[in-house]
Amino acid sequence: MAVGNVVGVAHSLLLRASDLKDDTDHMNVVSICLFVSLLCACIVLGHLLEENKWMNESITALLLGLCTGVVVLISSRGQSSHVLKFDEELFFIYLLPPIIFNAGFSVKKKEFFRNFIAIMFFGVIGVFISFAIVSSGTWYFFSKLGLANLSIRDILAIGVIFSATDSVCTLQVLNQDETPLLYSLVFGEGVVNDATSVVLFRAVQTYNFDNFTPLEGLQIGGSFLYLFFSSTILGIVSGLISAYIIKTMYFGRHSTDREIAIMILMAYLSYILAELFYLSGILSVFFCGIVMSHYTWHNVTENSRTTTKHAFATMSFIAETFIFLYVGMDALDIDKWKMTKSSFKESAGLFGSLMGLILLGRAAFVFPLSALSNYSTKSPGAKISFRQMIIIWWAGLMRGAVSIALAFNQFTMDDDTQSSVEDATLITTTITVVLISTIVFGSLTPPLIAWLHPPQHRSNNSDAALSPKASFDADHFIPLLNDTERDGENGTNDQSGISHFLDRLPRPQSIGMLLTAPRSTIHHVWRKFDDAYMRPTFGGRGFVRMASRRGMELPEEDEELEDEEQN
Amino acid sequence: MAVGNVVGVAHSLLLRASDLKDDTDHMNVVSICLFVSLLCACIVLGHLLEENKWMNESITALLLGLCTGVVVLISSRGQSSHVLKFDEELFFIYLLPPIIFNAGFSVKKKEFFRNFIAIMFFGVIGVFISFAIVSSGTWYFFSKLGLANLSIRDILAIGVIFSATDSVCTLQVLNQDETPLLYSLVFGEGVVNDATSVVLFRAVQTYNFDNFTPLEGLQIGGSFLYLFFSSTILGIVSGLISAYIIKTMYFGRHSTDREIAIMILMAYLSYILAELFYLSGILSVFFCGIVMSHYTWHNVTENSRTTTKHAFATMSFIAETFIFLYVGMDALDIDKWKMTKSSFKESAGLFGSLMGLILLGRAAFVFPLSALSNYSTKSPGAKISFRQMIIIWWAGLMRGAVSIALAFNQFTMDDDTQSSVEDATLITTTITVVLISTIVFGSLTPPLIAWLHPPQHRSNNSDAALSPKASFDADHFIPLLNDTERDGENGTNDQSGISHFLDRLPRPQSIGMLLTAPRSTIHHVWRKFDDAYMRPTFGGRGFVRMASRRGMELPEEDEELEDEEQN
Repeated sequence: MAVGNVVGVAHSLLLRASDLKDDTDHMNVVSICLFVSLLCACIVLGHLLEENKWMNESITALLLGLCTGVVVLISSRGQSSHVLKFDEELFFIYLLPPIIFNAGFSVKKKEFFRNFIAIMFFGVIGVFISFAIVSSGTWYFFSKLGLANLSIRDILAIGVIFSATDSVCTLQVLNQDETPLLYSLVFGEGVVNDATSVVLFRAVQTYNFDNFTPLEGLQIGGSFLYLFFSSTILGIVSGLISAYIIKTMYFGRHSTDREIAIMILMAYLSYILAELFYLSGILSVFFCGIVMSHYTWHNVTENSRTTTKHAFATMSFIAETFIFLYVGMDALDIDKWKMTKSSFKESAGLFGSLMGLILLGRAAFVFPLSALSNYSTKSPGAKISFRQMIIIWWAGLMRGAVSIALAFNQFTMDDDTQSSVEDATLITTTITVVLISTIVFGSLTPPLIAWLHPPQHRSNNSDAALSPKASFDADHFIPLLNDTERDGENGTNDQSGISHFLDRLPRPQSIGMLLTAPRSTIHHVWRKFDDAYMRPTFGGRGFVRMASRRGMELPEEDEELEDEEQN
Repeated sequence: MAVGNVVGVAHSLLLRASDLKDDTDHMNVVSICLFVSLLCACIVLGHLLEENKWMNESITALLLGLCTGVVVLISSRGQSSHVLKFDEELFFIYLLPPIIFNAGFSVKKKEFFRNFIAIMFFGVIGVFISFAIVSSGTWYFFSKLGLANLSIRDILAIGVIFSATDSVCTLQVLNQDETPLLYSLVFGEGVVNDATSVVLFRAVQTYNFDNFTPLEGLQIGGSFLYLFFSSTILGIVSGLISAYIIKTMYFGRHSTDREIAIMILMAYLSYILAELFYLSGILSVFFCGIVMSHYTWHNVTENSRTTTKHAFATMSFIAETFIFLYVGMDALDIDKWKMTKSSFKESAGLFGSLMGLILLGRAAFVFPLSALSNYSTKSPGAKISFRQMIIIWWAGLMRGAVSIALAFNQFTMDDDTQSSVEDATLITTTITVVLISTIVFGSLTPPLIAWLHPPQHRSNNSDAALSPKASFDADHFIPLLNDTERDGENGTNDQSGISHFLDRLPRPQSIGMLLTAPRSTIHHVWRKFDDAYMRPTFGGRGFVRMASRRGMELPEEDEELEDEEQN
């Protein structure tokens, strides 16, 4: 018997054996395989399109997902269009936490806290204003567009779903190094508004709105405060515990892997504990990231510091790409599209009215709140220019996977047929809004920023060093910067070229200037408290035990993570 | 209305809202929360027990899991004992790949390929011998112990389940730096025998053994060869593609994150593609790890190198701890235990006979195959000593999560009652064998090695530098080693203190010496081929484009990953 024959038979044996495997298990393997391949393709394509100013990684992933969806749809002859059904758990439990954690871990803390008041205005009052406008607009328009039977609950749910900006999308179009003020305002708003949205969404699902009393309004306000503070405290406590454990137990003595593992697990624990107690996991893990970058990160070994910085960014990058790919592939949910009975004109009307309401709802709080800030600020340099207001308005218009997840949650519970036609229409409309807003606003925001807020408005020559492309290797520039910028106006004796440099930039001033004097006092008190009590307990820059023990050099002060703390 | 009241009402609002959430979703959050907390506890406990020579991380995790299982069992009043049911998919799709990949990524390649023939002997012939002994012993003993109705298929399945050593357990008790020969033999066997087990297990599930012909035996042999070579080639090709992409596209120019993401995704793709085609994912991802550490790793930036080295180790560490925790928690599967009707005496008999068969089955191939190696080796230094044989025998006796997964796969398909009693008995017996063998052999192996094969047998003074505790920071020792060992007998001009040092060690010789002359020729030819064709195409040490472009120093040669390539 020839060897070829044996191999052939062996192959058929393996195929026969395959019948024994569970089919659903294997379908899972097929879809994982497809997703991983597409992720690789996205990374390669995104790299090739790096120089293209219209495309970014998220749009590439979205379009690639859409194309794959079309291919699957055609090859299954219109029967099936998605390989994985949109799964809320996958999204909220596995994909979102690394993205938000990394955002907190790498956020410029000083910029964030400087604008904290403005961020809270946008993220709380703004969401309520937008919610009111989108809800009432939906109530007014949708009944004229073939959706006459919507309950008050559904209308309010639409208001919540479309009133909050998507923080993951924001990360893609705004750059922390190029436009720190705009990034911290819009992304910070995206983090804070999660708590507002959670509260509003739960209120919408819980209350009976036919006899809504002012007391219940007060309850909603109270539950926001409870949610906001308990989530924040949970995140901060998790971060501090990780810092304390790593500082006292000194894992680095034996193993860098344990340090990194503890950091990852504690960060994740802060998210999942928040979810366990029905709090806002996004807020928790964001503040956990901030605390970890301030304390824990300084307590680990040099290798762990490099590893965590890049590993967290990589996890976040993979999760982001995955989400956009997923949304793109899921968009052609053929069952839902078949179920909607709306004509093209009606669908376009629904989409158009929603987009209009989103534009209006955001304009209705961005411009007044910014103007309020400008009115109360005395220093002329502290005003938010009209151009900046436009960017803040525009860059926050994208709706993303959170909206889709909430729409699925709200509109797939009912079982009666009439309602499910309307539900399907609402879901397809949500998907359309997400796709179009991500692609349109995502591709137009960078050119808009370049047009309205060109680099010379921000600083004269910092872009070479601080563009996202260069920032990954920013440490290569430090010697240069130190040479040329050392004698600058800012005479502090810290070692950080980048932070030093950032300090010299004429910073665009913000709504936070409203409270400049109290804020700097708070900052001063915090610095004293931090140095006197927090750092000795939890570690942090300059308080790391191993530095003296091991005879290693002191922790470097020129790390990007640290450019926030020198004044 | 008092603020306290508002907060209280708000809290109750949140709790009310919680009823709306899907209960199963929230149960999932509860179990994730519990697992993450336990993982943190394991890491802290494992760190505290670092100096204890009887305990290791895996036993800590296993015992912690058992204790938690007991607590859950008691608090649910005997109704429920596990928080998550043992899930094959979770194990094979998510937990196993990072462990095996990291093992391939960090394996000492020279040691591995030097012993390749011996590894193949143990991993292929050894598994068949052990399979024959365990199966026939099971057939003989089990009918006397209350399991008279076992089908021939079940008996053969037991043979497969208990004939393969568990590579994850092996990683825990053997140390690559302390006992490189033993590690490469036993762990290499664990990787190779996965292919053998897969083939045997599928054959058992597929064939009708009442009329088994020699032709079918040949088919099994053929499918082993097919599986082995196609899995290996798949892994190698994935690794090479990743190296080629990173070398030509030069991701590091823009972003270290993309490099790392591509490495992770391509490695995972090699595993999942192998699963897709019903090959051995373990073999694929192991060889992908080897190729990546030889080529890809040298093509990425310095930061990516540090990050990948530690991030892969961390992922593997978390997955290992998770598996042991999981096995521990799952052991008290109260439904299965209730269903078995065996008395304690019968259960003990089943356990005892299986353990005896495992001991016997492994002895039956380790000693003869080692003796065969000794017989054919001429050089007296190349013999495997009797003590080393005992360690090889003993260290491979652990059975782990793979056995449990296979047992669940085999014994949970039938639905009729009589059969399910026997199936439950077989599953509880498997769990008992895994628990006891992991705890007993896991805790006794390190002392046994210390007793039979003390450090002075291996080398005179290398342990201080090469112990697992120090190896993480081995680069700190390099200047010292370079000073004192530079003029050693090994006069190559490479820069590596550690590898230099390793070379000077009197290496225990192996069965691979059987083929020393041809093997060194092969090695020589490979080196020439590698330098002439492979490295210019796929990168690798000394062929990295960015080194010259960026004006960075040449890739360091003293990295641990590289201590294998200097001769």
